[in-house]
Amino acid sequence: MEAVFSSGRDWRARLQAKLESRRVQRFIIAVIILNGIVLGLETEPRAMASFGETLRFLDRICLGIFVVEIGLFLVAMGPRFFRDPWRVFDFIVVGIALLPAAGAFAVLRSLRVLRVLRLVSAAPQMRSIVRALLSAIPGLSSICLLLMLIFYVAAVIATNLFAASFPEWFGSIGASMYTLFQVMTLESWSMGIVRPVLEVYPYAWVFFIPFIMTMTFTMLNLFIAVIVNAIQVQSESAQKEQIVKIEEITQHSESSLHGDIARLRGEIRELKTLLGRVHALPLGTRAGEKGTARE
Amino acid sequence: MEAVFSSGRDWRARLQAKLESRRVQRFIIAVIILNGIVLGLETEPRAMASFGETLRFLDRICLGIFVVEIGLFLVAMGPRFFRDPWRVFDFIVVGIALLPAAGAFAVLRSLRVLRVLRLVSAAPQMRSIVRALLSAIPGLSSICLLLMLIFYVAAVIATNLFAASFPEWFGSIGASMYTLFQVMTLESWSMGIVRPVLEVYPYAWVFFIPFIMTMTFTMLNLFIAVIVNAIQVQSESAQKEQIVKIEEITQHSESSLHGDIARLRGEIRELKTLLGRVHALPLGTRAGEKGTARE
Amino acid sequence: MEAVFSSGRDWRARLQAKLESRRVQRFIIAVIILNGIVLGLETEPRAMASFGETLRFLDRICLGIFVVEIGLFLVAMGPRFFRDPWRVFDFIVVGIALLPAAGAFAVLRSLRVLRVLRLVSAAPQMRSIVRALLSAIPGLSSICLLLMLIFYVAAVIATNLFAASFPEWFGSIGASMYTLFQVMTLESWSMGIVRPVLEVYPYAWVFFIPFIMTMTFTMLNLFIAVIVNAIQVQSESAQKEQIVKIEEITQHSESSLHGDIARLRGEIRELKTLLGRVHALPLGTRAGEKGTARE
Amino acid sequence: MEAVFSSGRDWRARLQAKLESRRVQRFIIAVIILNGIVLGLETEPRAMASFGETLRFLDRICLGIFVVEIGLFLVAMGPRFFRDPWRVFDFIVVGIALLPAAGAFAVLRSLRVLRVLRLVSAAPQMRSIVRALLSAIPGLSSICLLLMLIFYVAAVIATNLFAASFPEWFGSIGASMYTLFQVMTLESWSMGIVRPVLEVYPYAWVFFIPFIMTMTFTMLNLFIAVIVNAIQVQSESAQKEQIVKIEEITQHSESSLHGDIARLRGEIRELKTLLGRVHALPLGTRAGEKGTARE
Repeated sequence: MEAVFSSGRDWRARLQAKLESRRVQRFIIAVIILNGIVLGLETEPRAMASFGETLRFLDRICLGIFVVEIGLFLVAMGPRFFRDPWRVFDFIVVGIALLPAAGAFAVLRSLRVLRVLRLVSAAPQMRSIVRALLSAIPGLSSICLLLMLIFYVAAVIATNLFAASFPEWFGSIGASMYTLFQVMTLESWSMGIVRPVLEVYPYAWVFFIPFIMTMTFTMLNLFIAVIVNAIQVQSESAQKEQIVKIEEITQHSESSLHGDIARLRGEIRELKTLLGRVHALPLGTRAGEKGTARE
Repeated sequence: MEAVFSSGRDWRARLQAKLESRRVQRFIIAVIILNGIVLGLETEPRAMASFGETLRFLDRICLGIFVVEIGLFLVAMGPRFFRDPWRVFDFIVVGIALLPAAGAFAVLRSLRVLRVLRLVSAAPQMRSIVRALLSAIPGLSSICLLLMLIFYVAAVIATNLFAASFPEWFGSIGASMYTLFQVMTLESWSMGIVRPVLEVYPYAWVFFIPFIMTMTFTMLNLFIAVIVNAIQVQSESAQKEQIVKIEEITQHSESSLHGDIARLRGEIRELKTLLGRVHALPLGTRAGEKGTARE
Repeated sequence: MEAVFSSGRDWRARLQAKLESRRVQRFIIAVIILNGIVLGLETEPRAMASFGETLRFLDRICLGIFVVEIGLFLVAMGPRFFRDPWRVFDFIVVGIALLPAAGAFAVLRSLRVLRVLRLVSAAPQMRSIVRALLSAIPGLSSICLLLMLIFYVAAVIATNLFAASFPEWFGSIGASMYTLFQVMTLESWSMGIVRPVLEVYPYAWVFFIPFIMTMTFTMLNLFIAVIVNAIQVQSESAQKEQIVKIEEITQHSESSLHGDIARLRGEIRELKTLLGRVHALPLGTRAGEKGTARE
Repeated sequence: MEAVFSSGRDWRARLQAKLESRRVQRFIIAVIILNGIVLGLETEPRAMASFGETLRFLDRICLGIFVVEIGLFLVAMGPRFFRDPWRVFDFIVVGIALLPAAGAFAVLRSLRVLRVLRLVSAAPQMRSIVRALLSAIPGLSSICLLLMLIFYVAAVIATNLFAASFPEWFGSIGASMYTLFQVMTLESWSMGIVRPVLEVYPYAWVFFIPFIMTMTFTMLNLFIAVIVNAIQVQSESAQKEQIVKIEEITQHSESSLHGDIARLRGEIRELKTLLGRVHALPLGTRAGEKGTARE
């Protein structure tokens, strides 16, 4: 029983190793790129008119390969599959295509191309970049929370103040949030939004100008937090290196001095031996010894 | 008399500690979030139609809790209350709701939601972020003053030059400042403002292009000042750490050499003792000494 | 003759010192601020209708004070006056008001407010900020030259390609440069300029998209050059400090070891003296000594 | 045979040296600048009306000089010519003018001005700046690949979703990519594109807002990668310098201690010699020695 289970595990480990081998991974990357091109061509009416069937067929084959790959991974990894975020990502973007894309879910058909993002999970370089991008986010969470809080408060105030006259822009909290997001990106904030508002409420700039300044300043600081963090990470590793080098230099110097002192000690010991020999022996022996030493 | 006063102070200190306890603070944060949701829902006409009374009632309860909390803080802290900027902030944003919001002050009703910003003063993480944001400002004061000076001068010149033909944009210093702020954010500066102006004053670009360049360059430097400051603070502490480490390394090396030298010294002393024992003492004493040492 | 000349120089030096004294400088700053307010009020038609005469009178008094101040500086400093860029700046911005502002030069009247920029030359803090801003420019000269070169080439190409169909935007090199500057600031580049152009020349994006990318990337690098420079200056001084501290630590450690070695040397000398003393004595004593030692 | 070949190489090397001499390079730079001005003036209809013939003649002379220069370089360098990217750049931008600019290639006439970019390859300072700009690109390749991948996926989704209602903006992948590039630069993204789309598809913001945020955040990180890289390069060289300085300090301290220890060793040797001399000699000699030593 034990042996069967163990061999079962072996078989699965070997399957996973096979699936993660360079050859299979390269094949999958090729299929992803092919699928990307096919899904792109499917948006061209002319291409669809000429090779519509072929494109749909190719798309199904690509999807089939992905389904088989992920199925094998599921078998090989068991419940561990769902602990690896990249595998879950693959599972979801491929799974979208298997949902019934009819009626209210017709939009899901358009999301099939998300499959191409599998390139990120398949190429290790891309993975590490996305990991680096995501790793910057936790450090930004409290400043993002602050931004969202200011945003919410500003949206409620804007809705209270301007909903009556500008229902399209500030009719609800959702509409206000969208409009304030637009103002924050500085897109047509003045000619498009604030100047018309100013015509009805001449003091509306008291709300908008500080809003823009606060948001810009806070965004700037969010931005700076990312830069300073990135520099800190880099400079910390550089400083560790430097400390190691300084340690080496100091140790080199120390060991050189140690050597010097050790030689000194050797000479003192010699001196001691000499002194001990000179004084410790009976006079006769000593004279004889000396005599021989001089020869 | 003294005892009464002292026990009075004890009672207040205990009240403040109670108010600042984790439990009370969490309760207040919950009330702030509830109040934020209520004030948000109050902007939805449908929500108001269905639960208008309930929402208004909940809002009043939240406000009541805040008033009681701040009142108790006032009692507990006495005049110290007004020395803590966060308490004063709470006092103002809650106080707004107690002002008569009628007639010209109807706008104050919309500002009730500022109360939600109490989340910043109630959550320590948020406080520290806001403190960090504010701490960047003093270092920027002279560059901001310079920006404002250039801004004012540009606004006076623009008013003098363009008020006659473009009263809406440059009719007064206020209008010019608003328009120049818009130009500075690069929003529709050309298609919206400068191209129409150029049709009347073909040389207006001599004013606007240098204005944009100067402002952008100065803003860029303001921006850089913040980055460099943030990096400086970080690198200074890193360098202090490094110095401490170098000191440790050097001291380690030094003490190792000290040990070496100390051992050397021990041997020299031994040598001296040996030599001293042999040569230094008067005949009688030395013999006696030797005798005892050898026993 | 010598004495007279010398006393003449003394008198001028004393005059300059007087003019540069804190009291006079504060008075001048106050006059500048007053003049700024007066020139601002002069743009308000209502203010001019009520106190027009007073404002013009105040402006003339301020101007008179500046003229007297600069005249005295000219007398006190002689030709050195024109070697100090801040004095020359003051001379020019005040001098503008003395030019005949009639006919084609009517625009000069609007530039009187440039006088307010004297605040920069009068306040030492402002001076140092402007100096810092200007100090960043030389390091950017070659990248700016590159930007201008790309800009010129792009303007000539755009004029050649689009002048026929869009004379308003690309009719001449000047017009093309202005339009490309607008495109570079990303203001309405697509909806305002490129989309209309694309309708006539469907491949125009081959020109505009790379232009935007090149300019943005080069600007970004210009920007980064300023940041890296600023950080370098800061980190260099920090590293000098660090080296000084490391030197101190090393010297402290060294001198401690020196002390140790010096003490060692002292003991060795003592040993030598001892040894010398022992052997230097007449033979009889020594022999007796030796004899007893062996017992 | 050998000699002839060698002298042939000598002659070519001397020609290249001549062409690269400061005098010739300055002349070429002057011709480039002249050609730039001429090509600029050719876009002015008035200038063409007055000196059209002269300008065309000057342009041909400049072109002739370039052709001769590049021809001589080709002769002097042989196949090595095409290994130097700057030479190839010169070859291409000058070669454009020699292509037949008729019919479909009429656009090539407009590209003659690219010749002015030879200033970059001719001026060493410019070369080094362009080299620095280009050197930043390889480090950005994987983040650019990621951007392009997201861009492609977003373009396919946008085409699938919005092509039917907005053929002008999202009719094909190319159109969608252009529109999304515009959205990414934040130009009229809301008033121009997203608000009209929202009127047809009320949930389109679910696509656009995350797209803007993802792109902005990724661009920001690309940007930061460039800054951090630039700082790293600078700080690495600074740290190498620092290590060298620390090494110097440590070596100075070490050699000073070495000197100390060497002196100590000298004294110990002296001691040994003294000791050796005292004990090693026969008694008579030793007394005599002592006698002379004391004199």
